[in-house]
Amino acid sequence: MSENRKGSFTLPGESGYEKLTLELAEKWGADVIRDSDGTELSDEILDAGYGIYSTICMIREHNEWAKKNHDKLQQCFLMTSPAVAAEGKLTIELMKDFFEEQFSVNDSDKAFRYWQVYDRATDTLLAADKWSYDKEKGCVTIEEPAAWHSYTVSFMAYRIWEEISMYNHTTNNWDKEHLMQIDPIYPQTQEFLLEWMKEWCETHPATTVVRFTSMFYNFVWIWGSDVRNRNLFTDWGSYDFTVSEKALDDFAAKYGYELTAEDFINQGKLHVTHMPGSRKKADWMEFINDFVISFGRKLIDMVHEYGKKAYVFYDDSWVGIEPYNGRFEEFGFDGLIKCVFSGFEARLCAGVKVDTHELRLHPYLFPVGLGGAPTFMDGGDPTLEAKKYWNSVRRALLREPVQRIGLGGYLHLVEGYPDFCDYIEQVADEFRTIGEFHKEGRPYSIRTKVAVLHYWGKLRSWTLSGHFHETYMNDLIHINEALSGLPVDVSFISFEDVLNGALENVDVVINAGFAGSAWSGGDVWKNPAVVEKLTRFVYEGGSFIGVNEPSAVDGYDSFFRMAPVLGVDEDTGARICHGKWEFGVQTEEGLMPEGSFVKKTGNYRKGIPFLTDGKAKVLAQDGGVPTLTVNKFGSGMGIYMASFEKTIENTRLLLNLILLAGGEDRNGLYLTDNCCTECAYYPGSGQLVVINNSDMPQTTTIQTADGPVEAQLEPYATKMLRI
Amino acid sequence: MSENRKGSFTLPGESGYEKLTLELAEKWGADVIRDSDGTELSDEILDAGYGIYSTICMIREHNEWAKKNHDKLQQCFLMTSPAVAAEGKLTIELMKDFFEEQFSVNDSDKAFRYWQVYDRATDTLLAADKWSYDKEKGCVTIEEPAAWHSYTVSFMAYRIWEEISMYNHTTNNWDKEHLMQIDPIYPQTQEFLLEWMKEWCETHPATTVVRFTSMFYNFVWIWGSDVRNRNLFTDWGSYDFTVSEKALDDFAAKYGYELTAEDFINQGKLHVTHMPGSRKKADWMEFINDFVISFGRKLIDMVHEYGKKAYVFYDDSWVGIEPYNGRFEEFGFDGLIKCVFSGFEARLCAGVKVDTHELRLHPYLFPVGLGGAPTFMDGGDPTLEAKKYWNSVRRALLREPVQRIGLGGYLHLVEGYPDFCDYIEQVADEFRTIGEFHKEGRPYSIRTKVAVLHYWGKLRSWTLSGHFHETYMNDLIHINEALSGLPVDVSFISFEDVLNGALENVDVVINAGFAGSAWSGGDVWKNPAVVEKLTRFVYEGGSFIGVNEPSAVDGYDSFFRMAPVLGVDEDTGARICHGKWEFGVQTEEGLMPEGSFVKKTGNYRKGIPFLTDGKAKVLAQDGGVPTLTVNKFGSGMGIYMASFEKTIENTRLLLNLILLAGGEDRNGLYLTDNCCTECAYYPGSGQLVVINNSDMPQTTTIQTADGPVEAQLEPYATKMLRI
Repeated sequence: MSENRKGSFTLPGESGYEKLTLELAEKWGADVIRDSDGTELSDEILDAGYGIYSTICMIREHNEWAKKNHDKLQQCFLMTSPAVAAEGKLTIELMKDFFEEQFSVNDSDKAFRYWQVYDRATDTLLAADKWSYDKEKGCVTIEEPAAWHSYTVSFMAYRIWEEISMYNHTTNNWDKEHLMQIDPIYPQTQEFLLEWMKEWCETHPATTVVRFTSMFYNFVWIWGSDVRNRNLFTDWGSYDFTVSEKALDDFAAKYGYELTAEDFINQGKLHVTHMPGSRKKADWMEFINDFVISFGRKLIDMVHEYGKKAYVFYDDSWVGIEPYNGRFEEFGFDGLIKCVFSGFEARLCAGVKVDTHELRLHPYLFPVGLGGAPTFMDGGDPTLEAKKYWNSVRRALLREPVQRIGLGGYLHLVEGYPDFCDYIEQVADEFRTIGEFHKEGRPYSIRTKVAVLHYWGKLRSWTLSGHFHETYMNDLIHINEALSGLPVDVSFISFEDVLNGALENVDVVINAGFAGSAWSGGDVWKNPAVVEKLTRFVYEGGSFIGVNEPSAVDGYDSFFRMAPVLGVDEDTGARICHGKWEFGVQTEEGLMPEGSFVKKTGNYRKGIPFLTDGKAKVLAQDGGVPTLTVNKFGSGMGIYMASFEKTIENTRLLLNLILLAGGEDRNGLYLTDNCCTECAYYPGSGQLVVINNSDMPQTTTIQTADGPVEAQLEPYATKMLRI
Repeated sequence: MSENRKGSFTLPGESGYEKLTLELAEKWGADVIRDSDGTELSDEILDAGYGIYSTICMIREHNEWAKKNHDKLQQCFLMTSPAVAAEGKLTIELMKDFFEEQFSVNDSDKAFRYWQVYDRATDTLLAADKWSYDKEKGCVTIEEPAAWHSYTVSFMAYRIWEEISMYNHTTNNWDKEHLMQIDPIYPQTQEFLLEWMKEWCETHPATTVVRFTSMFYNFVWIWGSDVRNRNLFTDWGSYDFTVSEKALDDFAAKYGYELTAEDFINQGKLHVTHMPGSRKKADWMEFINDFVISFGRKLIDMVHEYGKKAYVFYDDSWVGIEPYNGRFEEFGFDGLIKCVFSGFEARLCAGVKVDTHELRLHPYLFPVGLGGAPTFMDGGDPTLEAKKYWNSVRRALLREPVQRIGLGGYLHLVEGYPDFCDYIEQVADEFRTIGEFHKEGRPYSIRTKVAVLHYWGKLRSWTLSGHFHETYMNDLIHINEALSGLPVDVSFISFEDVLNGALENVDVVINAGFAGSAWSGGDVWKNPAVVEKLTRFVYEGGSFIGVNEPSAVDGYDSFFRMAPVLGVDEDTGARICHGKWEFGVQTEEGLMPEGSFVKKTGNYRKGIPFLTDGKAKVLAQDGGVPTLTVNKFGSGMGIYMASFEKTIENTRLLLNLILLAGGEDRNGLYLTDNCCTECAYYPGSGQLVVINNSDMPQTTTIQTADGPVEAQLEPYATKMLRI
């Protein structure tokens, strides 16, 4: 074990628990102490010689100013539920479906001109003189609707309760003032915030790092009026919370065309990250990103002027920051902090171009965790939780360096849990040791290079839209999670990238999602040039791994545009009368670990896969339809999986398929022979790290350049071997 | 029990078994003896005083003429499998995928001009000078294809083995000459057939009824070259086997526009009955129907001239007859015979406007039955089979009169099965008795009138496309089968009918199918007038029962256009980030029989159902999503079922839902209180028929105008009670 026992660790300090704070800082080797949301550090802590992180959220905690400037609150478009007209007039109550503590109607003249009433039976916009608004009653009335048509009203609404604060209040039954969020799009808000930032820097001399939470615009979270349907919409990657009449006007002036309510509302579906975007959406994202960079940079410059560093928290109000669009460096941030449950989130953090990457590990020091389950309270087992989360994150950290880790929450909660404190000490040591290995060069990877292909490409590297538990219904998050710890170089490419030569440096392309989704690609597959490039790529030796409904789009002879390559297509019903090829299930020694490829539920509108020409080798089937196939095409191959669920066994299956596609040996160098274990080899330091991802003891043998090495590991254990 | 012990029964006679034939004719009360395919009756039978049915198939068994007139064989379009072009020219072998004993290429000049080569990557037609045909090799070559695009060739092919004969040969390993099918579209063929018919009538004086099998064009059945994929395509309702260069030319002359290969090939999907049709398809069907009537009528007239009756078998070469398009009477047929496995087929037969309806019951007197399972051989139980089939058919016969029943096959096979002979005697008696009841007036029905709404409307009443076991993956066939024996008046209506006032005489509309299918409706749901009519219908007191993906179409705010009425919509993925209403499952006393609503598999691309406004009452759920809901809308209701499988319990559930929708009493008059039993009451004769649909003894009580009546029934038993 390495002896570097200090540094790279951020501890959440707690006033009133100064002794505990400093003891644990020592035990865990912390070099930095942070405050947490809603806490202040005492002088005893501030003066103890540690670096100090202070958390600020620019757009909330200014209620006094917000109350005086109600028209500077953040907004969004809302659409009423479709209401069916009978004979006679139709009246629609605007706020009926929405949480009245979150929203209030913005019926100012400037906002009102963006309101829209739609006939949804014909999907046509109603002329403004066909409906009227009763401000007092909060209702829109259509005097002469077409009987039996549905109508909706799209209107602007101020958001009067900052969503993270709203969630914390509601979850913890707080009885505090509701925090509002102000919109920095207005010059007056900017002026106020710059002054506030200056004042803050001057009154916080001990702070060495200002942690922004995050910049200005929260991910979208729309709450409903009914407790049976409180969560109307959540998307970590959507831009609906960035609108205001000013932003819309500025956009029109800059881009030469106007966006309407419907461009955001999209028939009530809004624009979820899981679906392909559009030119308009791309323009709007660029417009907001421009603004967030330009004003954000001023705040960061000011922080730097006071000799402090500026880190950004990659969650909450992160919208418009876009760390993966190639412009992140323009902010001038010194570090980026990501809270992580999963390996893909560690890679998401590690992949951003910034000096310092820091992970906020789970469990947070809160009484309850995800979904309200107990953690630091009776019935909780925080040590086991920590092991499981570390188990997810550790394998990703073996692949890509991250500079720091830390915890969040209320430190005193750990008092009754000495084994938790011991385990965190061990984690911190492991983390620092792995970090040392990385410093001496990249870990060994297999030769085969993988690219994940979807609509967003690099912009949505690793993540889809939020945490694993929010996106588990998409195969791709399972694939990303599996990939996050595999000894494989991975890139994320868009269809535009494919057209621009991105396949040149790639051996295997993965396309995984349901038809029409951003992850499968949707209408981009109508472009024959995309099909050409990928078909040629495989014919000349590359491989295409398609999962769920890869390359699927309506309108062609095959539903999967890559059907000739995959040897598999999907019957959406149009081929209900077509006979299907009979097949036997073939095995390929060692390819599929026992227990791999268990069917996953939660797919959207899955059709019936079938063999196109009968030549694909079927490795797994379910109810008589092929679910895992390998098809030789030219010098390459097409591999089809009906679904993919991240399990220990399926993770190894994915690696094996990548090795197969790349023509590499499944029993090659620096691979464990037990799928419950994984390893990373660092040629620079001659170190081999072996990990046990399971809750059982495991033994594994690894082929190295100097012959086989055997390792025995306790549940979840890490072993460092010099070879 | 009724005493009418003779008549209405057609017995398959067998030469060499004259004694048996006459004995069983007596036992079963036959009044008619028929030949079967490939058998001839002996004089002893012909002279025994029975009516004689003789089977003829106009388009086969003329091999001598066919060989001399190869260009008069029937044809179809075939499309080669997509072939991917690499660099350089691409050669496609036409017959590679097809069964060479069924097809031969028609490359005559007239046919060749209908050939088409498509680039399927762009779905564009290749100009004729971009490809060439090598007659000798049977290949098409594209000299300069776009590299990495897929190409297909659509060509005309003669069918050189009549499909029913091909099936019988292959299944029974016959070693006989392959029968060919000639096309009566040519004047020469017509001339030949009229002469043959005349000759036949003159040489068959004993025949009282000529049974046509059927007219000219078989349902579509395309076989492949590989035994692993022998059945490339089957559709009982498609018109692909009606094409010829002459028919295409005649069509163009008559309709003023040309049909192309692609109008039939449809990207290789062909036009299955389960998908919506088109104007072009409708024109072609009309064109073929015109021809089949005009020439068919000549043959029938001739039969009549010889004092014989003409019946038509409603299977095999039935295409172009269309007994439900309103023109069937133009043929002049005296009777229609349908082979039946199921209740819906009995109703399909009974609903045709013709004097005599006759059912060919199963099991056929063959050694093996469906799927090759033993019947009249070791391991078979023909009596149990007969009970089960009769059980399916009997309930339909209680609802609608049919004049005759009969058997088919080789009579000598029953010799070892005396209990089968006894059971058929009982069935024949029951059948005759029920027929007597019908003669005294229609059976009692509940007040509520049901219409099944789909793309084809009346044209595809009761059937979808073939037998139950061929269409079981569609919810609607389960619904039709359930409806076939319920005491409910049922009609089948199209969307055009809805626009033309068909809802006026209807209380409940059922729309059941997967999105895009003919049964759900597909693009017709884009017509707001359809939505208006049905929404109004429910608002004013009607009910809409939607099953699977009712009224589903892309492009609107809701996927189900009737979502406001149903209170349920389906998430196809676009609402993956939208919260869904929580709900509890509510019960409604007596509505759902125990064991009802078991989830059915086999759905196509099913999305995730959700409550739109939280108001629908959820009666069943599966995995947290609603699967059976009732939603009040105006004075009517929308009822949603995620799927429907025909079982005894679900059949009663459907009846109960119809009663609920119609505001009728679930325990009303002439309904059994045990869902394993059903009954029919004939007010004209005061007869109550009670049946046991289960394989266990049952007791049931029925409310009648004179008070409750109790019946105890053995498995599958029928009881006739005068009340």
